[in-house]
Amino acid sequence: MIAFLNRRYHFSSSHRLHTESFTDEQNRDTYGKCNNPYGHGHNYIVTVRLSGAVDPVTGMVANLAELDSFAADNLVGRYHLVNLNTLPEFEHVVPTTENLAIEVHRIISRFPKAFLESVHVEETPNNSFTYVTPSIYQQKGSAN
Amino acid sequence: MIAFLNRRYHFSSSHRLHTESFTDEQNRDTYGKCNNPYGHGHNYIVTVRLSGAVDPVTGMVANLAELDSFAADNLVGRYHLVNLNTLPEFEHVVPTTENLAIEVHRIISRFPKAFLESVHVEETPNNSFTYVTPSIYQQKGSAN
Amino acid sequence: MIAFLNRRYHFSSSHRLHTESFTDEQNRDTYGKCNNPYGHGHNYIVTVRLSGAVDPVTGMVANLAELDSFAADNLVGRYHLVNLNTLPEFEHVVPTTENLAIEVHRIISRFPKAFLESVHVEETPNNSFTYVTPSIYQQKGSAN
Amino acid sequence: MIAFLNRRYHFSSSHRLHTESFTDEQNRDTYGKCNNPYGHGHNYIVTVRLSGAVDPVTGMVANLAELDSFAADNLVGRYHLVNLNTLPEFEHVVPTTENLAIEVHRIISRFPKAFLESVHVEETPNNSFTYVTPSIYQQKGSAN
Amino acid sequence: MIAFLNRRYHFSSSHRLHTESFTDEQNRDTYGKCNNPYGHGHNYIVTVRLSGAVDPVTGMVANLAELDSFAADNLVGRYHLVNLNTLPEFEHVVPTTENLAIEVHRIISRFPKAFLESVHVEETPNNSFTYVTPSIYQQKGSAN
Amino acid sequence: MIAFLNRRYHFSSSHRLHTESFTDEQNRDTYGKCNNPYGHGHNYIVTVRLSGAVDPVTGMVANLAELDSFAADNLVGRYHLVNLNTLPEFEHVVPTTENLAIEVHRIISRFPKAFLESVHVEETPNNSFTYVTPSIYQQKGSAN
Repeated sequence: MIAFLNRRYHFSSSHRLHTESFTDEQNRDTYGKCNNPYGHGHNYIVTVRLSGAVDPVTGMVANLAELDSFAADNLVGRYHLVNLNTLPEFEHVVPTTENLAIEVHRIISRFPKAFLESVHVEETPNNSFTYVTPSIYQQKGSAN
Repeated sequence: MIAFLNRRYHFSSSHRLHTESFTDEQNRDTYGKCNNPYGHGHNYIVTVRLSGAVDPVTGMVANLAELDSFAADNLVGRYHLVNLNTLPEFEHVVPTTENLAIEVHRIISRFPKAFLESVHVEETPNNSFTYVTPSIYQQKGSAN
Repeated sequence: MIAFLNRRYHFSSSHRLHTESFTDEQNRDTYGKCNNPYGHGHNYIVTVRLSGAVDPVTGMVANLAELDSFAADNLVGRYHLVNLNTLPEFEHVVPTTENLAIEVHRIISRFPKAFLESVHVEETPNNSFTYVTPSIYQQKGSAN
Repeated sequence: MIAFLNRRYHFSSSHRLHTESFTDEQNRDTYGKCNNPYGHGHNYIVTVRLSGAVDPVTGMVANLAELDSFAADNLVGRYHLVNLNTLPEFEHVVPTTENLAIEVHRIISRFPKAFLESVHVEETPNNSFTYVTPSIYQQKGSAN
Repeated sequence: MIAFLNRRYHFSSSHRLHTESFTDEQNRDTYGKCNNPYGHGHNYIVTVRLSGAVDPVTGMVANLAELDSFAADNLVGRYHLVNLNTLPEFEHVVPTTENLAIEVHRIISRFPKAFLESVHVEETPNNSFTYVTPSIYQQKGSAN
Repeated sequence: MIAFLNRRYHFSSSHRLHTESFTDEQNRDTYGKCNNPYGHGHNYIVTVRLSGAVDPVTGMVANLAELDSFAADNLVGRYHLVNLNTLPEFEHVVPTTENLAIEVHRIISRFPKAFLESVHVEETPNNSFTYVTPSIYQQKGSAN
């Protein structure tokens, strides 16, 4: 029996939306106040969805303590209380929430004990983005 | 890379559940107190899910300011602080939350800059409805 | 027109995670403090997703009063304010949230008036599990 | 030992803001779209705060089942799924949330088993009103 | 300048409501299903409110890392994932949420770096209790 | 009849915690990762509580549209999507949430149509601060 495990992580970070290939005016037109040189920030809420068979002995898809330890080392420990623009993965990539979801997906997809189905990143309660593992999306799509 | 953009809108409206083709007794049996002639209301929370390629330059699926402006003109401005039964689209259609989700879908599907995947309408925290774009649903279905 | 009805139910229960086929040490290694013999508990939040055609006369997928009455008798009335380990379905099955989602699915799938798509069980705000009806999952998958 | 018991009730109602002593223009200037003749509605969330000594035998300020039964009969049963303007208490009183808080206070203050300290009514997540029992407020005030 | 610091902690525990001085029938009449011998549980959410002068150099009432460390050792580490009835403080005291708030107050009042004003314990989203430090309550009262 | 109006505003900002009078080592010891030179950010949720007589004709404490307009110009328009350290009021004041609450109080206390009782600033769901108007606090105190 296959089940989905959804786990939520939190980090508070800042970012500036600015693309190198645009003029200052294009940047302001595209990103508005989010382009101000000193940045702003958010309490990001990430939900990762993993799937796997429910182990008939333990009743678990994966050991949550192991997933949490992996996420503490690779995700929350790197993204909490920092400016996202200072991280190497955002040196040439604009840290929009779309791109943040893709980076979180890259990180959590290396967790070896379950299959990563999708990553959902809430930037504000009214504003969130989802990135579905491409092989899943091509077969099966997504709906909220 | 395809990502999903989820955006939440709020409106506070009233409605009466009553179908023209039923007798008064059938209406009361079907809708209970929701059939009272003076109506009642809700704080509706709508989440629209759109998909599109993440632009490699801007890092965005769509410009949220444009989507918000479209939704202000076509959705929130028309549905906030009104009685839904007085709108032309509900003159012969019962404004259940199912039908409200279908109407919101019709409205937001006209937004030209991204593909509408689904509409989710929360009537109360315990009670919500989802309408998935039919071409998506036929291929791919949906799960919460 | 097909729509999805999402309905949330709440129950507060306790459980102990312990598998008969493990030694005491294996149980402690696997479940940590959740293996303590006196148990602990949660406010579980269950969201069931059902699908069906929107009735063109009533505008409804299903009568919520009927679904609520079914859930009160078969789900909430049995699971609220109890220790899950004392129920027959968990006599030989560990009451992890994965297995709880599967049991809730078994219960709600007997509701005759709409098709059960999936069951989502939130154990804590940061921790939830989803069980999708197998025929749906094989065709269509799932994403949050 | 004195403790405070906070209990939340929900009802979904509609209202129209309109005062008899104003001209149509004054009503529109004061209430904006909330003055439209067909009304609109909300999911109201009421939190009542009661105080009392913690019974040294039962460990309780009051029996919640008794409070819930009182609130079902006198508050939720009367206000849920109705238009507030049709109730006798709002025949000559504008059903603003301020006045709604005062009416809820009048109702719950008749509960005989504990002392009502205050009533908080949330109209939307961003908008709420509190009415403190006058004898308490004069002595002690209030702060969120 | 005096400010209030509000900090939230979470623990998931189980309890049975049962008083030694009552007959079985009195216990069932008073506590209903909460008296079942195997217990049930909750995700408790505790908010502690502390006050103090805002340090003009650091801009802080107290160091949150120190408060969190104190709460981890004395509150969350002892109450998370346990059955409250097995703790010495509830051997002869019924673990109602009223009494739980009083015990949490006893624990956090020993934190030496700020003054504890009150403790709020949420048992479910609809149900919470507040215990105000007696010297504060006698002077100043409380309101939600 | 006196009632309290509670209104919530949101802004997303970044900040760096750093005090001029400390050495780099003292700053790191006091603020930890919050002292990193590039800052981090939050979705701040501000609740202002105002009091006043309920107008017997309009049923209102104050006109919310006027309060919102005042807050848009003086609070949200200045604090949303900025780095707080770049504002003049935080040039020599550390933008901790305690100091932010005091600044928000200074701003909203100039609203002329109702009396400001207190300001509550939520930095994260687990972490918030309250600043009560001093004349109120000295008379009456506060409790959550």
